Amino acid sequence: MKERSQRRPEPSASPLRLVHETWGDHEALLARTRTVSGGRLGQVDTRSLTVATPDAPLELQRGGVLRHVDVAFETYGTLNEAGDNAILICHALTGSAHAAGVHEGGQVPGWWDPLIGPGKAIDTDRWFVVSSNVLGGCYGTTGPSSVDPEGGERYGPSFPRYTIRDMVHVQKRLVDALGVTHLASVIGGSMGGMHVLEWAALYPERVGSIVPIASCARHSAWAIGLNEVARRAIASDPAWQEGRYAPDAQPESGLGLARAIAMLSYRSHDSLEAKFGRERVSSERHAGAVEGGSRSDELSRALSVGFEIESYLAYHGVQLSRRFDANTYLYLTRAMDEHDVAEGRGRLADVLAAMTMPALVMGIDTDVLYPEREQRILVEHMPNARYEVLRSPHGHDAFLIEFPQLAAQLRRFLSSLS
Amino acid sequence: MKERSQRRPEPSASPLRLVHETWGDHEALLARTRTVSGGRLGQVDTRSLTVATPDAPLELQRGGVLRHVDVAFETYGTLNEAGDNAILICHALTGSAHAAGVHEGGQVPGWWDPLIGPGKAIDTDRWFVVSSNVLGGCYGTTGPSSVDPEGGERYGPSFPRYTIRDMVHVQKRLVDALGVTHLASVIGGSMGGMHVLEWAALYPERVGSIVPIASCARHSAWAIGLNEVARRAIASDPAWQEGRYAPDAQPESGLGLARAIAMLSYRSHDSLEAKFGRERVSSERHAGAVEGGSRSDELSRALSVGFEIESYLAYHGVQLSRRFDANTYLYLTRAMDEHDVAEGRGRLADVLAAMTMPALVMGIDTDVLYPEREQRILVEHMPNARYEVLRSPHGHDAFLIEFPQLAAQLRRFLSSLS
Repeated sequence: MKERSQRRPEPSASPLRLVHETWGDHEALLARTRTVSGGRLGQVDTRSLTVATPDAPLELQRGGVLRHVDVAFETYGTLNEAGDNAILICHALTGSAHAAGVHEGGQVPGWWDPLIGPGKAIDTDRWFVVSSNVLGGCYGTTGPSSVDPEGGERYGPSFPRYTIRDMVHVQKRLVDALGVTHLASVIGGSMGGMHVLEWAALYPERVGSIVPIASCARHSAWAIGLNEVARRAIASDPAWQEGRYAPDAQPESGLGLARAIAMLSYRSHDSLEAKFGRERVSSERHAGAVEGGSRSDELSRALSVGFEIESYLAYHGVQLSRRFDANTYLYLTRAMDEHDVAEGRGRLADVLAAMTMPALVMGIDTDVLYPEREQRILVEHMPNARYEVLRSPHGHDAFLIEFPQLAAQLRRFLSSLS
Repeated sequence: MKERSQRRPEPSASPLRLVHETWGDHEALLARTRTVSGGRLGQVDTRSLTVATPDAPLELQRGGVLRHVDVAFETYGTLNEAGDNAILICHALTGSAHAAGVHEGGQVPGWWDPLIGPGKAIDTDRWFVVSSNVLGGCYGTTGPSSVDPEGGERYGPSFPRYTIRDMVHVQKRLVDALGVTHLASVIGGSMGGMHVLEWAALYPERVGSIVPIASCARHSAWAIGLNEVARRAIASDPAWQEGRYAPDAQPESGLGLARAIAMLSYRSHDSLEAKFGRERVSSERHAGAVEGGSRSDELSRALSVGFEIESYLAYHGVQLSRRFDANTYLYLTRAMDEHDVAEGRGRLADVLAAMTMPALVMGIDTDVLYPEREQRILVEHMPNARYEVLRSPHGHDAFLIEFPQLAAQLRRFLSSLS
C-alpha cells in the first residue's frame, strides 16, 4: 500500500534542509575528520520516501492520523538478496538522516561518519546501513515544520501529537519498503537509544540485536525537568507566536536559550571546567558574541560577565536556531519525556526480560543526563545483554565524540553476530 | 563616621519586605518545624542600619561609589562586654537576614532556625549571632530594587556593579557598628560560603574560625553557565524592559524560568527521581499549575506533558517571582560568577594556605552545583581545616534540609573553639 517515490531531491528545489552543522561540538567535528579505521563513503544523498498516504494512513499512538508522511533517509552499503544484512542507525534529538559520508558540495561529514564506511566498525562492505530522520523531525521527514498537503499551510502547533513508538512505526514502513527482511542490529544513542528499545519491544522477530547507548528505559524526572525549562524558554520568546511563526521568523532567542540549557546537561562539570574554567573572552569579541553587539554598556554589565563559557553557550544557541525548527524542538522533547518502553506492556522488568536478542548496552561514566545507573537497569533485566562503559570527560555528548572507544565496542559486537 | 539608626521598622511603613516564603522546599519547611535540640528564639525583628553616607561612602571593587547604604540585619543572643562572642551567618542567593526565629504575625521561621537558638548548635546562650541581607540584595539592604536617595527613582539597571568582596565590606561595617571586636566564626552555605572565604582573606585578624558549606574558592564554568542561562531567561521576558520595569510589574515569567533552571541544579538526578519519577498531575490541577489555566488545549499539548516535576518547577518559579526582584537576581548571580577568592591576591593555593584559622569545610555527597571536589580544594590547602561530608539525597539544597547532620557538625566544631 505504500507508494515508493524514491526520488533524489534537486539541490535547489528540494524540500530538504540538509545538515551542514555538527550536532555536537568542536571536538566532535575534529574527531569526525579523523579516520578511525577503514575507508570513506564519499558522497551520499539524503533521499525521500512516502510511507503514508490517504489509502495507507499512519494512525498515531495518541489518537491522531497522518494521511501523508514522507521520510528522509540515507543508505550506505548494499542490501543482499535475502534482505537480511541491514543495520538501522537512529539519531538523537537534533540529528538527521545524514549519519555518514558527505553531501554534494558539503564539507562536514555525517554525525557518525568515523564509525560507518568500508572497513569501519559498521562495515558497509558487509552491512546495508539505513539512517532516517524521525517522524516529526525537521530534516525532511514530515513534521511540524512541513506543509500540510490537505490545507496547504505549515502544520506548526496543529501537527498531531506523536511518540517514540510512532517514530519506530515509520522506520518500520521505511525498511519494509526498502526490502529489508531482517535488521541485524538497531543502534542509537540518547533519543536514538529510545528507538532501539522500542524496536526490540515492537518487532522482536525482526531485530537480531540492539545497541542502546546513553539512553534510558523511561525518561527520568531530571531529564523531563530539563526539557520542560527548555520548552518554556521557547514559548517565552514573543517571536514564538504560540507556534504560528513564519518559516523565516522563528523564535531564535528562545530556541537558542533552550539549546544553551541543554548543552549544560550534555556536558559535565569537569569537562566544562577543563575546557573553559574562568577564561574570559576579549571584551571586543564578547560584545559581539554574547550580546549581539547591540546592547548598551549598562545592560551588558547587568547581564553577563564575559566568560568563555557564556560565549560558548551563546554560540551553540545561535548555531541551533539557524538549523532547527522551534516547534519541532517542542514536539520532540515532549515525545522523549513521554518515552516509557513499558507503557501499556506491563512491568518494566518483564518488558526488558522479553528482549532476548543480543544487546550491547553502553553508558558514559560522566553522563549526568542519562547516568550509567539507567543503563544498568537495562542490562540487569535483559537476558542476553552486555554492559560497556565509555570513559570520557565529555559527559553525555561522548557518544558523538569518543569514536575510537565506540568503534572498538561496535566492531567486536557486530563481528560476534552470526 | 557611620550613622547608627537602629530603628525597628513599622510593619506598615517599613521599606523592608520580610521573608514569608521558605527559601528551599517542602522538606526544608518540615525540617524547620522540627526542633533539632534546644529552645526557640521566639519573635525576632529585622532591623536596619545605615553603614554608608555621603561623608563615609562605600567605594566598590569595580569602581563605583555608593553614598547611602542601609543594611537589613537580625541579631540573636547577647554581645558580651569584650565584643568577642559574635558569630556571623551568611545567606545564599535568594536568602535574607531572617535566619532564625519568627517575625511578628509570621508563621515560617528563619531559614536556619533549627540550628540557631538557646541550646541549639549555634547556641544563643553563648553566642551573639548576626545575620544580614547582602549588599545589593532585595530584602532591606540597599540594592537594585532600592530608591536612589539622590535621584528619587529606583536604581534598577543603573545600580553600580558590586562583588562578593563588596558585600563583605558592608558586613564588616555592620559588625563594627554593633560593637563586635572579634568574630568567633563566620558561617555560610553556597553564596554564603563565598562570603566566609572572603572574610578569611580580607580580615584574618578578626575571624576566629570559618565554616564554608557547599561553596567554592572560585565559580566554576558549569556554575557560571547555569547562572548565565538563568540571566538570559530573565532578560528574554519582554516585561523585563531592559531592567526598567515598575515594582509591581516585574518579569515574573522570566524570573520563574530562571528559578526553575536553578532548582534543577539545587537538586540531584536521584532526589528528583525518588520524589517525582514519572508521576503525573491530575489534568485539572495541571491546567492550573503549569499553564496558568489560560492556554488553549493545543498549546498545552505542545508545551508540557503534565508530569509532577513540571508542576514542581513551575510552582517554585511562581513562588520566587512573588518574593524576589529580577534585577537583583541578575546582579547577585553575576557577583557569584565573578567570585574568585584569589583575585588580585596571587596563587589560589597560597591564598588558601594563608587562612590559618580553624576551618570546618562541609560538602554534600550529591551536590552537582558545588561538588565535593571543590570543597576538597579548600581543605587541601588550608592548614587548619577539617572536611566533613553531609550525606543526603537532596543535592545542593541539603544545607537547608539536613539539619541533624549540620547541627552535629556545628555543635562539635563550635564547642572546640577556645
